[in-house]
Amino acid sequence: MPKHIDFQTDPSRYRHWKLVFEGEVTRLIMDVDENGGLFEGYQLKLNSYDLGVDIELNDAIQRLRFEHPEVKVVVLQSGKDRVFCAGANIRMLAGATHAHKVNFCKFTNETRNGIEDASANSDQKYLCVVNGTAAGGGYELALACDHIMLVDDGSAAVSLPELPLLAVLPGTGGLTRVTDKRKVRRDRADVFCTTEEGVKGKRAVDWRLVDEVAPRSKLDEAVSVRAKAIAAAAHKSSAQNGIALPPVERRRAADSNEYRYVSVEFARENRLATVTLRGPEGAPPANAGEMAQQGAAFWPLRLARELDDAILDIRLNELEVATIVFKSVGDPQRVLEHDMFLEQQSTHWLAREIRLKWRRVLKRVDMTSRSLVTLVEPGSCFAATLAELIFAADRSYMLIGQPQGDNRPPAMIILGDANCSGDLAMSNGWSRLRTRFLGEPESMHAAQDAIGKPLDAEEAESLGLITAALDDIDWDDEVRLLLEERASFSPDGLTGMEANLRFAGPETMETKIFARLTAWQNWIFQRPNAVGPDGALTRYGTGQKPNFDLKRV
Amino acid sequence: MPKHIDFQTDPSRYRHWKLVFEGEVTRLIMDVDENGGLFEGYQLKLNSYDLGVDIELNDAIQRLRFEHPEVKVVVLQSGKDRVFCAGANIRMLAGATHAHKVNFCKFTNETRNGIEDASANSDQKYLCVVNGTAAGGGYELALACDHIMLVDDGSAAVSLPELPLLAVLPGTGGLTRVTDKRKVRRDRADVFCTTEEGVKGKRAVDWRLVDEVAPRSKLDEAVSVRAKAIAAAAHKSSAQNGIALPPVERRRAADSNEYRYVSVEFARENRLATVTLRGPEGAPPANAGEMAQQGAAFWPLRLARELDDAILDIRLNELEVATIVFKSVGDPQRVLEHDMFLEQQSTHWLAREIRLKWRRVLKRVDMTSRSLVTLVEPGSCFAATLAELIFAADRSYMLIGQPQGDNRPPAMIILGDANCSGDLAMSNGWSRLRTRFLGEPESMHAAQDAIGKPLDAEEAESLGLITAALDDIDWDDEVRLLLEERASFSPDGLTGMEANLRFAGPETMETKIFARLTAWQNWIFQRPNAVGPDGALTRYGTGQKPNFDLKRV
Repeated sequence: MPKHIDFQTDPSRYRHWKLVFEGEVTRLIMDVDENGGLFEGYQLKLNSYDLGVDIELNDAIQRLRFEHPEVKVVVLQSGKDRVFCAGANIRMLAGATHAHKVNFCKFTNETRNGIEDASANSDQKYLCVVNGTAAGGGYELALACDHIMLVDDGSAAVSLPELPLLAVLPGTGGLTRVTDKRKVRRDRADVFCTTEEGVKGKRAVDWRLVDEVAPRSKLDEAVSVRAKAIAAAAHKSSAQNGIALPPVERRRAADSNEYRYVSVEFARENRLATVTLRGPEGAPPANAGEMAQQGAAFWPLRLARELDDAILDIRLNELEVATIVFKSVGDPQRVLEHDMFLEQQSTHWLAREIRLKWRRVLKRVDMTSRSLVTLVEPGSCFAATLAELIFAADRSYMLIGQPQGDNRPPAMIILGDANCSGDLAMSNGWSRLRTRFLGEPESMHAAQDAIGKPLDAEEAESLGLITAALDDIDWDDEVRLLLEERASFSPDGLTGMEANLRFAGPETMETKIFARLTAWQNWIFQRPNAVGPDGALTRYGTGQKPNFDLKRV
Repeated sequence: MPKHIDFQTDPSRYRHWKLVFEGEVTRLIMDVDENGGLFEGYQLKLNSYDLGVDIELNDAIQRLRFEHPEVKVVVLQSGKDRVFCAGANIRMLAGATHAHKVNFCKFTNETRNGIEDASANSDQKYLCVVNGTAAGGGYELALACDHIMLVDDGSAAVSLPELPLLAVLPGTGGLTRVTDKRKVRRDRADVFCTTEEGVKGKRAVDWRLVDEVAPRSKLDEAVSVRAKAIAAAAHKSSAQNGIALPPVERRRAADSNEYRYVSVEFARENRLATVTLRGPEGAPPANAGEMAQQGAAFWPLRLARELDDAILDIRLNELEVATIVFKSVGDPQRVLEHDMFLEQQSTHWLAREIRLKWRRVLKRVDMTSRSLVTLVEPGSCFAATLAELIFAADRSYMLIGQPQGDNRPPAMIILGDANCSGDLAMSNGWSRLRTRFLGEPESMHAAQDAIGKPLDAEEAESLGLITAALDDIDWDDEVRLLLEERASFSPDGLTGMEANLRFAGPETMETKIFARLTAWQNWIFQRPNAVGPDGALTRYGTGQKPNFDLKRV
């Protein structure tokens, strides 16, 4: 196992994917290197994947949006003959710890949601070409795309064989997308999910499992025609020039991760990671052209990428961290100005993409199974988009006034439009404030009225924006007690509690995937029938049949 | 452990509850007999409860609707001094098998949903008087009520101490009702659910955890005033006379359960329970008066009560049954006539209650974690309400025509209004047909057009009402293969898969409780941090602290 799992990569380093650009259409080709697994002990045969393969896919999807905004259609296809993708590697799954299985599924789910986000918000449509077997996670990858074409050769099929083969669920959104996106009738979905060999040809179309089939001899032509048709229907201009996404610079030390605008400090003995975000040094660019020139160095984008990397690093590499503490340093007015700049430029593709990137990063924060605490202290800059970290937190404390000897400006929160509009919506489709104020819509109006005004701790408390305003006499003790308490609770209990309390209000396909589907899958990932010595996942490939505890629970 | 857990009871046999009738107001008094536990090994101190206590509560709630429709307000209160309810008994939970924990929580959830159903649909409002500690499941019981009054005596509090005390979740709807029903702000909910001692007095009102507080000396008066006000606001007449609910007659044999209109046959070697429903013998009553005279003997009501008992019996007493097969015998026209009669009498309280009872029983079927297969054979009567069992099933097969030598009439399905209206809605708020046809609303219209027409197997298949129409050459083999296959799969995998595939479409508070909350709780109920030898649930009361695996998953 690598010492640290690294989420940074770029096309020059891909081992499993290729991007081929053809104007408005790009081919995203999956050609997994059997020997390129992230861990020892398995081979990635038949385009099966592990986290390393998905890290590259996530990178490609992000780059297509920022580096290639001209792309209207992404043709997701296999580089192997008569094999699309065999899904998550079973040996890898069977050998992985529970925590890795859960984290792996969460990230792959976020990546697939990222495909749907690109389609819905950046008009970058995904056309999936299933040229052979698409099994399990392979078909789930197809399900995340807008249009699925299946070769009709009498053998190629789509399938979700997890239940009959492995006694687990198709956990990367498969069950939810079959019923709620493809809207397959439930009894057909039941047949489909219990049939190892899957469904092929006309029946796959009739059941809405795929959108069309084509004979092998005509597949390339059919794909080309379909890609052109999708491109022609796109609403966006193809004249946009992208910006380059250079590697996120990060200095890793024993107890810290340093980025340009993010510092992460680990106090592992206290099971704490403190993530400090730094505000912008100066004013926003004068205009969109200047923003594009700054590109990936533009503060909001750089910060978002760094925060994303920091969160993923904690998730996968710091398993015992109980609590992430968010802090910030900077001028809240400067942050607000940057938000207003993005707002003014909201018709510019890059400004839109940056906001959408923030939305995804903040969703990732929401989905992180660590306690989240935001501390609003003197000298901080929790304004507008950054204020979302107050509302994403399980608790947020704010220091009243200026403690003696502290010459930093007193803590202030400034709300921006982005906090009240749906622009940074949670996965439930609502803004964090709307979700927060489910029971008191009048507080939502009060928050809207306060947009742009610097709010001190007592004002923020009376507006319901924070958990508590504390004076400097109580601050240290209260914060210490909270963090100690959090570290003392059962890690699992907290995960379950937070996964419930964070998501009041409506449910969407996305929240269904992360709650209903994932929670059941995590349960199954604990059950001896799957992972015990006689379980199906453990015994897969040994020639021995699993031995089940027959009680239905 | 009793040989069979019996869900039948009546007030004369209650050990833990009392009903005191005072006209429009009824007092439902919880006074748990410490020594009345369903199993050995624990005492039900401080009004803590086990499944036996909840079986009585469920009985009381059902009886109030049928036997006492005149009741407008149910005052749910404690018979103990300064103790409301300490929640589910911890020793019982710690000693219970995983399957029992899950089944116990499911039934208690259904009972609490039953309180909300009585309030929403029968205008029987629940006023909860918290006269002392209401901890965990005790507060969750209060949460199911319409109005919560808390004594303000400086010590009485409501609390959800499960996480800090036991490392599990408040799993009887607590987390969901706090955020989505009481709409408590999420950071306050976080404080509340991590504070062992809970919240009392004015803060409990400010945070919306309770509706009002009253000093102990004025509590009785305040309750009386509030009860009268709620009764005065009720829309229903108090002149209604109820019907008696005699015991459900059941003959239990080694391999069967015989009721008047339901037969259950167990083929345990094949892990099968076959539930056969019998249609009515004659025409529906001439009018509402005659229906009321028949009372509990009226076919739709008697059948509903019997089916409910049969399902609960399988859930709790037949843990290894993999699949429930539904069959029916009778004249589908007679079934349809009964449905139409209920429809015509829909303003009569009893007709309404019978339909609502069916809705609850069918929801219980949906929530049963066994594979459900409905076989529509010659001589069957799957019409109208009974046809819901076709749509509730994971698969439904229908035999084409009349096999040689079989002189029963060929299988016919007849749809009724109840299949297409929301009257028998699933917990997602939609009818089963609407959920089934999420992807093809045109099929919903076709079903509506077919209401009242006897549909043979091929018609039913082309309308999408069944999984497959089979001729008698294939029937036996296909059915046998399906049932064998089902028995061969992982019981847990099936539970997870069915819990996903059955609930396409919208989510409601009810589905959130059964999916998001319950699935996470079931996961936690498997985790060593709760149930392992060093886990919090296991060690509770031993004086030893739990020893946690600190990885956050």
